[in-house]
Amino acid sequence: MSERVWRHLNLCPRGDTDESIADAALAVRDGTIVWQGAACDLPREFAAWPSEDLGGAWVTPSLVDCHTHLVFGGLRADEFALRLAGASYEEIAKRGGGIVSTVCATREADEDTLIAAAGARLEPLLAQGVGAIEIKSGYGLDLASERKMLRVARALGRRYPVSVYTTFLGAHALPPEYAGRADAYIDDVCERMLPALADEGLVDAVDVFCERIGFTLEQSERVLEAAGRRGLPVKMHAEQLSLSGGTALAARYGALSADHLEFLDEAGVQAMKRAGTVAVLLPGAYYFIRETQLPPIDLLRRHGVPIALATDCNPGTSPATSLLAMLNLGCTLFRLTVPEVLQGVTLHAARALGQSERHGELAPGRSADFVAWSVGTLAELAYWIGRPLAARVVRAGETVYTAPVSPWTGRIEAHAASLDRSAK
Amino acid sequence: MSERVWRHLNLCPRGDTDESIADAALAVRDGTIVWQGAACDLPREFAAWPSEDLGGAWVTPSLVDCHTHLVFGGLRADEFALRLAGASYEEIAKRGGGIVSTVCATREADEDTLIAAAGARLEPLLAQGVGAIEIKSGYGLDLASERKMLRVARALGRRYPVSVYTTFLGAHALPPEYAGRADAYIDDVCERMLPALADEGLVDAVDVFCERIGFTLEQSERVLEAAGRRGLPVKMHAEQLSLSGGTALAARYGALSADHLEFLDEAGVQAMKRAGTVAVLLPGAYYFIRETQLPPIDLLRRHGVPIALATDCNPGTSPATSLLAMLNLGCTLFRLTVPEVLQGVTLHAARALGQSERHGELAPGRSADFVAWSVGTLAELAYWIGRPLAARVVRAGETVYTAPVSPWTGRIEAHAASLDRSAK
Ligand SMILES: [Zn+2]
Ligand SMILES: [Zn+2]
Repeated sequence: MSERVWRHLNLCPRGDTDESIADAALAVRDGTIVWQGAACDLPREFAAWPSEDLGGAWVTPSLVDCHTHLVFGGLRADEFALRLAGASYEEIAKRGGGIVSTVCATREADEDTLIAAAGARLEPLLAQGVGAIEIKSGYGLDLASERKMLRVARALGRRYPVSVYTTFLGAHALPPEYAGRADAYIDDVCERMLPALADEGLVDAVDVFCERIGFTLEQSERVLEAAGRRGLPVKMHAEQLSLSGGTALAARYGALSADHLEFLDEAGVQAMKRAGTVAVLLPGAYYFIRETQLPPIDLLRRHGVPIALATDCNPGTSPATSLLAMLNLGCTLFRLTVPEVLQGVTLHAARALGQSERHGELAPGRSADFVAWSVGTLAELAYWIGRPLAARVVRAGETVYTAPVSPWTGRIEAHAASLDRSAK
Repeated sequence: MSERVWRHLNLCPRGDTDESIADAALAVRDGTIVWQGAACDLPREFAAWPSEDLGGAWVTPSLVDCHTHLVFGGLRADEFALRLAGASYEEIAKRGGGIVSTVCATREADEDTLIAAAGARLEPLLAQGVGAIEIKSGYGLDLASERKMLRVARALGRRYPVSVYTTFLGAHALPPEYAGRADAYIDDVCERMLPALADEGLVDAVDVFCERIGFTLEQSERVLEAAGRRGLPVKMHAEQLSLSGGTALAARYGALSADHLEFLDEAGVQAMKRAGTVAVLLPGAYYFIRETQLPPIDLLRRHGVPIALATDCNPGTSPATSLLAMLNLGCTLFRLTVPEVLQGVTLHAARALGQSERHGELAPGRSADFVAWSVGTLAELAYWIGRPLAARVVRAGETVYTAPVSPWTGRIEAHAASLDRSAK
């Protein structure tokens, strides 16, 4: 039986800075929090346990990245460069660019290659305190390749200290071999791919890209129905480029989340509220494609729809491997508040995965999954652009990541800064 | 005498991807490059030297961050949070926010505190391959405090493997004790502060904030004149919020650079061209203050004015400790091309410091200051959002930074990804 008290920390149990506890302590037995609160209230029974000093660090729940396309083959950085150099879409397509290039590269890659490439993208996320991540399929677009992507996602969950939640996104784009036959592809998704992958235990949720350039409302509804028949929760890429009504449809099917939402209207917001659907905003994609239509933040606030943020890590519209960068983008571009973005990557992101019992909050009875941050105030998590801030990441009570020691000063890089500041 | 050949690398000697050399080699004697070129052309005399394999990595010159306010006291993250929560400027001022708060905190802090805080911001820049950095004063605004800032900047250059270039920016803002007496403050800057600090060897260049909320054209010119009397090169914060004509003035004084430039007109661009003044663009500040007026990129291109990019690291308008993030912002928001942003943080940034003989380019006879990147293509340096990419940083032929070994896979995190990709 392992018992430990974490001392000398400032605790923010739910990502809400107003609820935080200065000079707190956390008592952990066998990976589970058994007590948390102000250090001065620590019950005697825990005071004798072995303790670890967090040096006055701020502590939040581990972060949750609730919308990613982390697994993919190939690379589209050269396409990015070509576009900036003025190449037309035609030229880029001729040189094999666009989503089709990712589909081809993903189909060609073997599992080990995909694991290594996605792992290299996952590592910076983990070093920033991500403890749970959603990973979608959707670059395979045939049964074997979608299976491969989902197996890779599961493998990442075994290799790394992170909870992986898989989402089957067969209805992401129309594969080239189905050109002009979208309904037939949706047949394949619903009748063959989804049941087979669900039977193999590879699918935690089902997603669909409902958009002019994706699938119609009718096609999307067939996917949601098929998921429902298997008892799988659903979510949707909705209203990213136009108002299609996808969100209201998703809400009718009790969707966990509707994601993107730049063009969402009030009726859609109300539908989300009624259904308990989380709004997952993706400021990385908004920024990267230079969108100017802001998601309806005030409507979401007014109707009390929980807002989550995620990286949307993908090669075409959000090549982001930093969830903290999304906090900064969310504050800067969407004018979200600091508590909103913090809850957006903890409490509400966990809810967007249907996993609010397991992630996104620190409380007695829950797993001790937390991050000690090298900051003087939690607002720094959203404030800095490109500054490493996680001093230590703890999962089930065990340290799974420590910021590297500075090669120049011998300090734990980030944490020393916190101590300097708190000493003032 | 130390001799070494670096092998198995792709070389981009001037940040221009069109000029790069695949499978190159670099021969280095006593920290100086003596030969570079295609490995197959390596002269016999170097082939016998001890060699080091860079595993197929891309190599660029070390990066140059040519505009920063890295040294400051205090923290403004809470002010950021307050603003987002809807606090008025009045409330923020009442709670001690704004630049005055930074000036007060900087005046109060001792040198060791400033070194530790600035060092913690410098370290992520170094881990991204920055080998030369400009650091401005300008939060002291009195002789003793400006001296302290510049001494701290020099101390950072001694403690860390980076070349520090100091800039005296006494004319950054009007200190509270001079309220309503800007001309008298400029007297102090020109007649007392600048000569004293120059005599102490603390000043490599002189800068002034020429703007409605900074100093007038006339006041700015007095600063430029005073610098000229001491033989010090000048630069200017110009046309950030309005067209003031500062750039043309700076060009008349042969300025190394004019910085920000969102509101610059064609006459100003022509004046820069004639004077050989570099345009330093600061996309972090543009982004963070949600500016919508783009700098005149096409005019700068058309007139052949070299463009540099920098972090502008400062607590009020660009809390950025990542130069790679500036590449992404420069491409995404300013539509600069990948070679433009790469040259903007190497060749042209060195020129903006008047240090093009020492930094920003790899060539025989120059110091072997370079970065080996864990990328399959250099476009990745501008493409990824928040991904650590430097595998190794070399200064005068010696490795001064190596990416940490992954705690999860045992690989050198970033570099392994490169090998995976190049193996495909
Ligand atoms: Zn997505
Ligand atoms: Zn500046």
